[in-house]
Amino acid sequence: MSNDIKMEKIVNLCKQYGFVFPGSEIYGGFANTWDFGPVGVELKNNIKKAWWKRFVQEDPKTFGVDAAILMNPKVWQASGHVESFGDPKMDCKKCKQRFRADTLIEEFSNGEVAAEAMSNEELEKYIEDNHITCPNCNGFDWTKIRKFNPMFKTTRGTLEDDADVVYLRPETCQGEYVNFLNVQRTTRTKVPFAIAQIGKSFRNEITPGNFLFRTIEFEQMELQKFSKEEDSMGYYEEYKRKAMEFAVDLGLDKEKLRYHDHDKLAHYAKAACDIQYNFPIGWEELNGIHHRGVWDLSRHSEFSGKKMEYQDPDTNEKYVPNVIEYSIGADRLTLAVLCNSYEEEKIGDDIREVMHFHPFIAPYKVAILPLVKKFHSNKAKEIYKIISKSFMATYDETGSIGKRYRRQDIIGTPYCITVDDETLNNETVTVRNRDDMSQITLKLEEIKEYINKNIEF
Amino acid sequence: MSNDIKMEKIVNLCKQYGFVFPGSEIYGGFANTWDFGPVGVELKNNIKKAWWKRFVQEDPKTFGVDAAILMNPKVWQASGHVESFGDPKMDCKKCKQRFRADTLIEEFSNGEVAAEAMSNEELEKYIEDNHITCPNCNGFDWTKIRKFNPMFKTTRGTLEDDADVVYLRPETCQGEYVNFLNVQRTTRTKVPFAIAQIGKSFRNEITPGNFLFRTIEFEQMELQKFSKEEDSMGYYEEYKRKAMEFAVDLGLDKEKLRYHDHDKLAHYAKAACDIQYNFPIGWEELNGIHHRGVWDLSRHSEFSGKKMEYQDPDTNEKYVPNVIEYSIGADRLTLAVLCNSYEEEKIGDDIREVMHFHPFIAPYKVAILPLVKKFHSNKAKEIYKIISKSFMATYDETGSIGKRYRRQDIIGTPYCITVDDETLNNETVTVRNRDDMSQITLKLEEIKEYINKNIEF
Repeated sequence: MSNDIKMEKIVNLCKQYGFVFPGSEIYGGFANTWDFGPVGVELKNNIKKAWWKRFVQEDPKTFGVDAAILMNPKVWQASGHVESFGDPKMDCKKCKQRFRADTLIEEFSNGEVAAEAMSNEELEKYIEDNHITCPNCNGFDWTKIRKFNPMFKTTRGTLEDDADVVYLRPETCQGEYVNFLNVQRTTRTKVPFAIAQIGKSFRNEITPGNFLFRTIEFEQMELQKFSKEEDSMGYYEEYKRKAMEFAVDLGLDKEKLRYHDHDKLAHYAKAACDIQYNFPIGWEELNGIHHRGVWDLSRHSEFSGKKMEYQDPDTNEKYVPNVIEYSIGADRLTLAVLCNSYEEEKIGDDIREVMHFHPFIAPYKVAILPLVKKFHSNKAKEIYKIISKSFMATYDETGSIGKRYRRQDIIGTPYCITVDDETLNNETVTVRNRDDMSQITLKLEEIKEYINKNIEF
Repeated sequence: MSNDIKMEKIVNLCKQYGFVFPGSEIYGGFANTWDFGPVGVELKNNIKKAWWKRFVQEDPKTFGVDAAILMNPKVWQASGHVESFGDPKMDCKKCKQRFRADTLIEEFSNGEVAAEAMSNEELEKYIEDNHITCPNCNGFDWTKIRKFNPMFKTTRGTLEDDADVVYLRPETCQGEYVNFLNVQRTTRTKVPFAIAQIGKSFRNEITPGNFLFRTIEFEQMELQKFSKEEDSMGYYEEYKRKAMEFAVDLGLDKEKLRYHDHDKLAHYAKAACDIQYNFPIGWEELNGIHHRGVWDLSRHSEFSGKKMEYQDPDTNEKYVPNVIEYSIGADRLTLAVLCNSYEEEKIGDDIREVMHFHPFIAPYKVAILPLVKKFHSNKAKEIYKIISKSFMATYDETGSIGKRYRRQDIIGTPYCITVDDETLNNETVTVRNRDDMSQITLKLEEIKEYINKNIEF
């Protein structure tokens, strides 16, 4: 249903209608940070709610956690982030700006070249051979590639002279790994099971962000499935399927989604795959499904001295479970949803702008609109008061009813309830549908059930 | 309904049953961080949901935002945090540990002395006069009081040599102030209105944390009400009332809650009040209601050069609105709920441990229990599958039914559904109530409505 839309247009729409504002905007902004506004915060929260419902609430073998952002620094030694985390960076010697070499190549090749998997030498050669110039000054005078660790550092300590360096977590999944034993013990569950988390991570990114696509703080929704080795590839395939189903059920167009298997893998990984979405900037990663083997739990065993093992209560067999990770960025998914939902519909000479959000994730489920303020606003406010106990609702009494419908269309409100003389006389309202603009008449007592039925996810 | 409970007991319970684990526990923990486990994350999320429902969803004049944690550093100059944020700290010269002088006094006086409002000289004199010794080594050899800025610092920059110092926000409310104009414009609302936010803040606290009471990262739920000066005291009183109502409706005992008006105010403040809860560590702040005058918006006008004013569309009058802040810590409230909900009930020679959570915030709304695994588990799993579409539910088939009830009691599940022969033959189940252990029989198709009705908030 979506038209093709430019990123700039989405950014402007988001700002105009209260989805997303530039971070610290009155101070000229702050690079790659964004603030969710009144409708944006509801949209994003509902997306998180949909994910949690699907993957935690409806799965008896998945358990949530919410781990601290600041973790013991040893966690990042065990995970390898202190030693070898980082993107391949090159500086332009002319303008002194720094860029990610793999991103330069991916942008140059429109995502056709999987630069992420290339070695530093391969990256340098490709840039040389294809004469990729500096996006800032158009120069062609690069330094060698160096690693730049994007973990944000800070210090923690009660005494200034023994202050410890700590990191803002660059990924949430370590919160699951370090709690593997705690969760298994307290839920008395058996392997296979999964631990899920939604939370913020931070990376000192230097690449242009492309709005919500890449931000220095971002919210991850991810789960780690622990299983025996022989079952692990089955779960890898299962989450590939479930991840795609979730994206489609949330309303993303099938033809804008594709699998992208990784050619090169981390040394410990057994398989890795992204699901890409066709963003206004091209095909880019929406989420990842990674077979991480026993790497994470083994490393934490080694570094902590605690055995991160599972003992099968039936066979007494002890083993380190394999891990399948499914991870999706809430901000990035919100961006995909915004791009995918927007439509400019021609109605005669007029253009109707609509956000066709799945009703479950729409910021407001319903708008309450008195037809004539003078006559119907008291009744409409009464109805708002009742409806808002059950749903996010909005109330609007200013301007023509047509104008008010359009205001709700662009923020994606699936139902508009018009309160008029019929309401005063017969306790009925007109319910107008956002997508096809059809109208039906409902009794007041039917509204709640009608909306409940139609917003199901 | 609650018994008095020691903090140590709550910490152990939380760890044992999966509410809260020490952060990075396998690495010996990490001072004053905690990870929410499978039932803890649901409890805390439900508490946040209850707050948002009450203060945002049901109030047509309150709008949400979700601002970035990393803000432009100028924000913290405008707010005064760079210059003068900080707690009065003293070092013990003997053991070199550092403490907050006001906390030492508050603990010494069991919260009877409002040390927060004392000057450094008054603090030093009180400690001297009352011979307050070091909690660590029992020494009595203090340094003078110094300020220690508890903002976590990090650096952000594309080039290492011009990396900017940035701060992890020590409070969320600046996200509302800097977006005041954005929210007013996009919602087309008139003053008075409020902006609300739930999000994490960070403080490099050196005081012993007392479990979830004081942590280096904490989640705030807060709103800022913008109004004309002449209306502002009315809103201050209104939020004092609403904040107390919310705490009581959530299930906290009235006699464990009290207002605590501040004696001394910040130079810009017109009034300030806490609501205190009688924690196991004594009466301590649960939330604050502060009349902040025009301080925040004026300072941001001054530092950003953007006029943070409102123009009344009816009178054309321009003014800087007054701000009433209502702020409550989600972690601290979760702690209060845990302490308040716990009961050891004597039944004959036996002790029943129960968490009497309000059903709306209970981690699981319902447990599905097959009476005999062999005969009833298939049907029970079918029922779980349907119920879990609507509610967080759990499934347990191991151990006697009595034991399974008790497992649900301590994690606060309000309803246990037992699946037995009657279910197979007549499609009815037994529903057992957590609080009074009464049982009723329901038809399968009645379950959803019954639970829905009973978990309302």
